[in-house]
Amino acid sequence: MQVTHFQLDDYGPWTTEPEPRPEMDLQVLQSRLYADVADGVGARGGYAFYGRGDNVVAITCGLDAADHERLLETVANRYPVSASAGVGTGRTPAAALAEASERLQAAGSAQEAGRTRVLRGAFEDATEPFQVAHFDAVDATGRLTDRVDAATARSRLLRGFLALDEHLRERRGALCFFAGGDNAIAVCPPLERSAYEAATEAAEADAGVPFQVGVGAGTTAREAGGAAKRALERARRDGETVVAPDGLAESA
Amino acid sequence: MQVTHFQLDDYGPWTTEPEPRPEMDLQVLQSRLYADVADGVGARGGYAFYGRGDNVVAITCGLDAADHERLLETVANRYPVSASAGVGTGRTPAAALAEASERLQAAGSAQEAGRTRVLRGAFEDATEPFQVAHFDAVDATGRLTDRVDAATARSRLLRGFLALDEHLRERRGALCFFAGGDNAIAVCPPLERSAYEAATEAAEADAGVPFQVGVGAGTTAREAGGAAKRALERARRDGETVVAPDGLAESA
Amino acid sequence: MQVTHFQLDDYGPWTTEPEPRPEMDLQVLQSRLYADVADGVGARGGYAFYGRGDNVVAITCGLDAADHERLLETVANRYPVSASAGVGTGRTPAAALAEASERLQAAGSAQEAGRTRVLRGAFEDATEPFQVAHFDAVDATGRLTDRVDAATARSRLLRGFLALDEHLRERRGALCFFAGGDNAIAVCPPLERSAYEAATEAAEADAGVPFQVGVGAGTTAREAGGAAKRALERARRDGETVVAPDGLAESA
Amino acid sequence: MQVTHFQLDDYGPWTTEPEPRPEMDLQVLQSRLYADVADGVGARGGYAFYGRGDNVVAITCGLDAADHERLLETVANRYPVSASAGVGTGRTPAAALAEASERLQAAGSAQEAGRTRVLRGAFEDATEPFQVAHFDAVDATGRLTDRVDAATARSRLLRGFLALDEHLRERRGALCFFAGGDNAIAVCPPLERSAYEAATEAAEADAGVPFQVGVGAGTTAREAGGAAKRALERARRDGETVVAPDGLAESA
Repeated sequence: MQVTHFQLDDYGPWTTEPEPRPEMDLQVLQSRLYADVADGVGARGGYAFYGRGDNVVAITCGLDAADHERLLETVANRYPVSASAGVGTGRTPAAALAEASERLQAAGSAQEAGRTRVLRGAFEDATEPFQVAHFDAVDATGRLTDRVDAATARSRLLRGFLALDEHLRERRGALCFFAGGDNAIAVCPPLERSAYEAATEAAEADAGVPFQVGVGAGTTAREAGGAAKRALERARRDGETVVAPDGLAESA
Repeated sequence: MQVTHFQLDDYGPWTTEPEPRPEMDLQVLQSRLYADVADGVGARGGYAFYGRGDNVVAITCGLDAADHERLLETVANRYPVSASAGVGTGRTPAAALAEASERLQAAGSAQEAGRTRVLRGAFEDATEPFQVAHFDAVDATGRLTDRVDAATARSRLLRGFLALDEHLRERRGALCFFAGGDNAIAVCPPLERSAYEAATEAAEADAGVPFQVGVGAGTTAREAGGAAKRALERARRDGETVVAPDGLAESA
Repeated sequence: MQVTHFQLDDYGPWTTEPEPRPEMDLQVLQSRLYADVADGVGARGGYAFYGRGDNVVAITCGLDAADHERLLETVANRYPVSASAGVGTGRTPAAALAEASERLQAAGSAQEAGRTRVLRGAFEDATEPFQVAHFDAVDATGRLTDRVDAATARSRLLRGFLALDEHLRERRGALCFFAGGDNAIAVCPPLERSAYEAATEAAEADAGVPFQVGVGAGTTAREAGGAAKRALERARRDGETVVAPDGLAESA
Repeated sequence: MQVTHFQLDDYGPWTTEPEPRPEMDLQVLQSRLYADVADGVGARGGYAFYGRGDNVVAITCGLDAADHERLLETVANRYPVSASAGVGTGRTPAAALAEASERLQAAGSAQEAGRTRVLRGAFEDATEPFQVAHFDAVDATGRLTDRVDAATARSRLLRGFLALDEHLRERRGALCFFAGGDNAIAVCPPLERSAYEAATEAAEADAGVPFQVGVGAGTTAREAGGAAKRALERARRDGETVVAPDGLAESA
């Protein structure tokens, strides 16, 4: 499992010097820059999520050093700020991210003016099959979107997402991402069905609405994630809470 | 106070039909579409935040019906999906959003194929001065970004942000937005300094790191938000927790 | 009539230092930056066309100094390069552009490292009605797009466009823009129908395919351009070469 | 040599139905869509140029059918219009484009409602080395940009570019693209230095300003184009008209 931690270089100071820049300019910059990273990573089968905007975590199985260099070059050529990246590998996504973040931190602080477009990392040629779990809230439209105001709906879904994230990350070494709408996507080592059941329960406890999940397996995020989406469609159709491959690392 | 609830039309079904679309295509679409809304709203002094991606909340004081129509037309002309909007007014941002969401919901479900590019709302000619509070974590770089892995940092900051949001929304009628990095921006009715102190305490309790806040006032989000950013710079420089205007609605 | 000449600051050197940047990064940068200018100008009723990419000409009737400042600020906050602008007014679009370019040139060379985000210009409160003429090749799909290779089709259409441009600019003070496909858009002082007939003949002589044109009038590019598009639809439907308002400055 | 002709599906009718769409929305759409194609092609070493916006020609050596499918899927998932593509191979770029356009035309008219996201083509595993020639006008800044108005400068440079294009395409089988500023890029079969000298003379005759050119060789557009850029830097520094590799297909 290979994970990349992208981080804008010295971004905080840039946003306020010589005087604070208009917030909407910053939001547009962050959104577009993230979209370029998602596009570049996605074109090679990876997944990247917005995270904090100035720190973006990506599943990069299949992307080598040259792919990363090219992505950092592209960012530097299109935006007023550059990005650096740490890449790590590990048995679980969380372990790989820990290594990625450590490598990046060792290369210099996020607010160090001298750190520019640095790439630090280990790359693996091949990855063991892993799982992607695609969660959503059961009938989020009827229960939340069409019923309560937008801030309340978002707050409850974020609570559920945070519960999922902490549950799966701390106990299972997974990484969990909010994917917009009522969707959360977890990248996991091979897990038993019961692990996903427990995760949906944790999410429901905090969000106050039930969750369902489709699980897929593969050696790229796109492959496993596509299988997870199809599994989630089956869960929706059949009213099941978890649709997962029978074997641990089998494709759904 | 005028607030708009933008919502993609029948988006959930579109993402899965005829078969689930690649996740990175969806993430890129959502990020770019949000950036266009933020740009269009921001060009007239408003603020819009990503929210759930398919549901975007915006502070739209100063934008009339024609501005909204033009924005919805632009989205429809650039993307494979269209958006609708509900606009509400109220004494507090939360009250205005509640009205906005109700109007939008009354126009049809988020997953109703027949609802396309609908605008429903009341627009106010002028708004009373309101406040924007710009929060960030004290030394987030040293405490989190440079120290723990990216998922842990994000999780702790989101916990703090959710605490801020619930505290300020439920007790004060404010709307709170995660702005990336370690920043949260709350749009508030005129509040006493003690209200902001209490909010930073709520955030610290959940995030485990202290927060500081700069508060500004104005009749557009850009004006109040710019003053808030400058106040936050003073808070950072002087090590203060809250820098706010003395009078309730005075510009910092 | 008010025209703006936007120009990237010191762009040529940037593209080659410290070493030549990848061409596709430059093309993406130029296209996106142009799209932002077109969006910003268009949101206020103006027109902007790609031109040379690093030099963009816009019809900016209705945009004041603050609108221009905001646009230059936005570019500087989103891209690795900044832009300056000269604004001119005149009886004809060509005269207004001449003044705009002179003002910009007086502020410093396009390759002067010290010229950054400069705005120089005169702004007019109101404009006399002007015309927009929307040309296209008659049955370009059947004659060119579906019949010859893409390079040959483009070459012939560009020949026709250049003939239009020189004819209308030198004799009539109009500005002519290639709008993609087989479309050219001319912004003109009020002209007689015969002027447009002569222009289509000039284009046909060089392109080898006949052209047709719809003309509209208004005090913003969007208003006049919308009327021109509707007039062109009538020309297509009725097989007419020129559909123009009867009076000189009347809306079609 | 492998060349792709991308074409929007049934785009003309879409721009006018149910009524003509605002021109700036169309320009923004075309520019962004082109930028995505340039980015997707560029990430794999290819070159794509704007062309007519609704018809984009790309040098796609190294991109296979799956890469093309993915690109067409991405466009369809992000824009309100889809694109089709024809791919051709040949001894010269012009011959490859002729084949690409023929294949695309055989799949249906550009304005056929039933043709959606079609890919037709032959793909080659490896390509013979080819040349890229990067032209620019000698001191375009001093002669044109800083001296005449923006419309006159553009017109003269486009005249030069069209002369280059016709000269090199008709006599040598090259494809020539306007790259913005005062730059034109030709993708050529291996040519003698004298061919490039003759091309610069043709351009000067029509543009009224002298041109210079750097030539590079390689088996991808990025490789050959990067060498061409470095050769052009040498031409600028040394005041030479042509800097080209000594051998026909040798890297500069």
